[in-house]
Amino acid sequence: MELQLRYNQSKQTVAAGGVIFGSPEVIVMAGPCAVEGRDSYLNCARSLAKMGVRVLRGGAFKPRSSPYSFAGLGRKGLQILAEAREATGMAVVTEVLDPRDVELVAAHADILQIGSRNMQNFTLLHEAGQSGHPVMLKRGMAATCEEWLLAAEHIRAAGSERIVLCERGIRTFETQTRTTLDLSAVPVLKGIAPYPVVVDPSHASGKSELVGAMARAAVAAGADGLLIEVHPDPANALCDGRQSLDPAEFSELLIELRRVAKAVGRLIREERSAGIPVREAQLLRIKQGVANDDY
Amino acid sequence: MELQLRYNQSKQTVAAGGVIFGSPEVIVMAGPCAVEGRDSYLNCARSLAKMGVRVLRGGAFKPRSSPYSFAGLGRKGLQILAEAREATGMAVVTEVLDPRDVELVAAHADILQIGSRNMQNFTLLHEAGQSGHPVMLKRGMAATCEEWLLAAEHIRAAGSERIVLCERGIRTFETQTRTTLDLSAVPVLKGIAPYPVVVDPSHASGKSELVGAMARAAVAAGADGLLIEVHPDPANALCDGRQSLDPAEFSELLIELRRVAKAVGRLIREERSAGIPVREAQLLRIKQGVANDDY
Amino acid sequence: MELQLRYNQSKQTVAAGGVIFGSPEVIVMAGPCAVEGRDSYLNCARSLAKMGVRVLRGGAFKPRSSPYSFAGLGRKGLQILAEAREATGMAVVTEVLDPRDVELVAAHADILQIGSRNMQNFTLLHEAGQSGHPVMLKRGMAATCEEWLLAAEHIRAAGSERIVLCERGIRTFETQTRTTLDLSAVPVLKGIAPYPVVVDPSHASGKSELVGAMARAAVAAGADGLLIEVHPDPANALCDGRQSLDPAEFSELLIELRRVAKAVGRLIREERSAGIPVREAQLLRIKQGVANDDY
Amino acid sequence: MELQLRYNQSKQTVAAGGVIFGSPEVIVMAGPCAVEGRDSYLNCARSLAKMGVRVLRGGAFKPRSSPYSFAGLGRKGLQILAEAREATGMAVVTEVLDPRDVELVAAHADILQIGSRNMQNFTLLHEAGQSGHPVMLKRGMAATCEEWLLAAEHIRAAGSERIVLCERGIRTFETQTRTTLDLSAVPVLKGIAPYPVVVDPSHASGKSELVGAMARAAVAAGADGLLIEVHPDPANALCDGRQSLDPAEFSELLIELRRVAKAVGRLIREERSAGIPVREAQLLRIKQGVANDDY
Repeated sequence: MELQLRYNQSKQTVAAGGVIFGSPEVIVMAGPCAVEGRDSYLNCARSLAKMGVRVLRGGAFKPRSSPYSFAGLGRKGLQILAEAREATGMAVVTEVLDPRDVELVAAHADILQIGSRNMQNFTLLHEAGQSGHPVMLKRGMAATCEEWLLAAEHIRAAGSERIVLCERGIRTFETQTRTTLDLSAVPVLKGIAPYPVVVDPSHASGKSELVGAMARAAVAAGADGLLIEVHPDPANALCDGRQSLDPAEFSELLIELRRVAKAVGRLIREERSAGIPVREAQLLRIKQGVANDDY
Repeated sequence: MELQLRYNQSKQTVAAGGVIFGSPEVIVMAGPCAVEGRDSYLNCARSLAKMGVRVLRGGAFKPRSSPYSFAGLGRKGLQILAEAREATGMAVVTEVLDPRDVELVAAHADILQIGSRNMQNFTLLHEAGQSGHPVMLKRGMAATCEEWLLAAEHIRAAGSERIVLCERGIRTFETQTRTTLDLSAVPVLKGIAPYPVVVDPSHASGKSELVGAMARAAVAAGADGLLIEVHPDPANALCDGRQSLDPAEFSELLIELRRVAKAVGRLIREERSAGIPVREAQLLRIKQGVANDDY
Repeated sequence: MELQLRYNQSKQTVAAGGVIFGSPEVIVMAGPCAVEGRDSYLNCARSLAKMGVRVLRGGAFKPRSSPYSFAGLGRKGLQILAEAREATGMAVVTEVLDPRDVELVAAHADILQIGSRNMQNFTLLHEAGQSGHPVMLKRGMAATCEEWLLAAEHIRAAGSERIVLCERGIRTFETQTRTTLDLSAVPVLKGIAPYPVVVDPSHASGKSELVGAMARAAVAAGADGLLIEVHPDPANALCDGRQSLDPAEFSELLIELRRVAKAVGRLIREERSAGIPVREAQLLRIKQGVANDDY
Repeated sequence: MELQLRYNQSKQTVAAGGVIFGSPEVIVMAGPCAVEGRDSYLNCARSLAKMGVRVLRGGAFKPRSSPYSFAGLGRKGLQILAEAREATGMAVVTEVLDPRDVELVAAHADILQIGSRNMQNFTLLHEAGQSGHPVMLKRGMAATCEEWLLAAEHIRAAGSERIVLCERGIRTFETQTRTTLDLSAVPVLKGIAPYPVVVDPSHASGKSELVGAMARAAVAAGADGLLIEVHPDPANALCDGRQSLDPAEFSELLIELRRVAKAVGRLIREERSAGIPVREAQLLRIKQGVANDDY
């Protein structure tokens, strides 16, 4: 089957909560897998903001393979996310699982995440598209690029083109990693579709020691953003601690990622020093700078 | 990861609309992919009932990879299904896509089908479980048996144990078939879980000429039922015509399947001659017959 | 890629050591994974012959993932195989790994087995084809049906059409089985190629408790033969004991397989009682019997 | 199965024809898929040498899925390779298919390549190991990292530790690329095994427009080298033209790769200007420079 989709425009940027996906900036999104408690989450958010992270992640509704695993704080988690957004100025991305929750989640977050398991949950895609909110659509673990784009088409058909695609690993026979990160999906999609493409090396590999190499590779492959799990205390995380970086590891990784981004003509926001309105400076730089390059 | 699920009972039958899954009888479910129109559907249903088919299938809500494909007749399709049930005495199985539709679908069908794409749509699983209705849970195209059983656990945790598992093919690199039917899942699941297991050779292979061989193989492997697409005019079907048998082909296949079932100590209901209350006779035979075998 | 191979004849039987693959008879091949010692092997061979097994299997050269595993008795193993053949009248199939060993193995065995790992070892395929001996070509663990047929074409191009294809499982993400037995390959191949197709449920599943169900399913799917591991003492086998049946289990399975074969219009040779020239009777039955069916 | 291999040393460099794999230098290997003719090959080799390429690739013996495809010039191809080596000073890597050819190939090339299809051709691995020559072992298309390391162990058990691993894509269900390049294998292997790891983005993706992004990503992920197909006239190549860069595209890519290499603390040899003994300068720089970093 050959992809039959045709797009009117060759590229498209998606603005969400003050950041622009698909611009020369590589958007770094980070945070713990789940919102586990108010104080620890706010502390974590503040330290990430200081490092230059643009988008804060954290799950309030967690899809869990087992019904007996921690499933998130729900509505209370959303309130903590909104509070962290207020406190830090970062944009917030969080997952929505139920079509009936789209409005609620949209009221607390800048970007709605549709997870891998729900890539073809068409009623959820429809509601998300109707909300008009930016949507980050993760690839299903067995989805071809074509099916992924067709899933995005469900959002578009519902009325929204504010779509960001997120590669997060596909199922293979290899057992050293949780899934196999398919970085070739980045140039493939950027060649045939107008959407920004971001990469989640944390869920793909499932092991914190592999996250750095795969994040660097994602930037070099042309990703428009990264979604990285960072937890203040990975060993005691309520979910996915095994793949989470601690803040010190993450901070070092950011330095490396900035170098790689620069080497491929992109940029990653610098550390935020006191008193400097970073976002404005950044946007200015984008406007003046490399923005006329072809991405 | 080793499967951590423990079950109190080693086997479990699921009664639904007059049939019993997990009994010596191999339950044949058949019908067109989608309900396309009232008259043609009723005609098709009547001829299937006459052949001895126990459960009628037909989609009212169709999950389609593309938003531009035929998505089913919706509520009107459900009414046609209910009418066919009334007219033929067959049980009806149909897919539910949206947690908000569970009640509506349950009012028209005997068995709620959760499709592959929604195997890990946990809000849908939860609603289906709460409905108390029998649920046929299809395997996700990249789901391990363990994840499949954990998905079933979401239904069970919501309050229902009336669960039937349906193997329908998994994604591999092979391109001659749409997916690769994993028949080893039948003995694997029957060895570790209490649920009946049925097989859908039509969606798995995607080619009508392969359906017969794989249906026979499924029965020989120990499947408790079959889900087979039959369309009065496959060449003009609105969806999945390429994998649909026509009534004549299906009728011949049933004869072969009965032989195979008998060879492995199971049975498939005979053709229904006028004036004989088949269902009762059938159930009687089950009670008297091979029912003390271990399935 | 669409398969470009075109064959002059639609079906082809392969005669080897007194058996005919692709006839109404489903050829049962059985034996231990490796030849481990003379006396135990001869005893095992005799009991299999008595049960009606047609072809004796046993590895003299074992391809092992690790260089530190038992790699077979080599030349001495071949001599034991030849002795067992002499003693029982069964045909012998054994694997050849090295193109330089083709002549030697052909001198001791009726059928040369090319293993999964060597499906695209083209120099080995060439030598095997030149030998004129029947070749049983196992599917590579990640080979498409098309590549498998192209590998067979290497044998044919070297001069021999005496080719039997053996499905033995492909790599997927499922972990409950060693590989996923792709039974749909049986009708797929029989629809497009002239070669007999046999199935190895033992190596595919890797678990003895799954072998019975998958062997029955293979026969129902139309397989022309089965390759089953049987070991007198699986718990102490030098290789692959976990997937081996013991003689008692195998004997029971044969009874079930004969029923399934009959149900699909095939036959499996009966147990061999003293004084009856079974092979002749069998061949006679084939000539008289179902042989005009379309296989 | 958990990897049981234990290595005495944590890292190991492999010297071959004047280059050192596993050093701070990222070794660029390039050339046409097959040696097609003397003059065109020598011209291509000279232009690659001038660009700074360290190792020349080119197939004399080509493993082809179909026996009817161009299978290489054989012995004559080896002579052309040796002549190109002489003319340019580059090291030469080429594939060996037959254990009987190991000595011949070793006499003409600096590095023996074992291809994907032969990763578990144990007799070939054994001969290659005994030759003492450096071996570049490509990953099988369905091989786990564990099986790949066990295949390397067959070389080591035969007497040689001069092993370089080459990731070249694994089989998945995705159809936009020929295989899925598994870049996570780079940090996985470097974390558990002592061997240098190189990446072949050309064969993995099968499309020239994806090679650049994946080559950059491979360097960012920590690869010790790259194997890239470059053909003077891709449209008329006798094999794999679809994935070959032309010299101009390749030359631009090299500039980008040097930037990425530098960003991750590695280096790729500069363009070779007349009269400067590049190799010596390069080695000197390695010795003085970043060489005390941990790779």
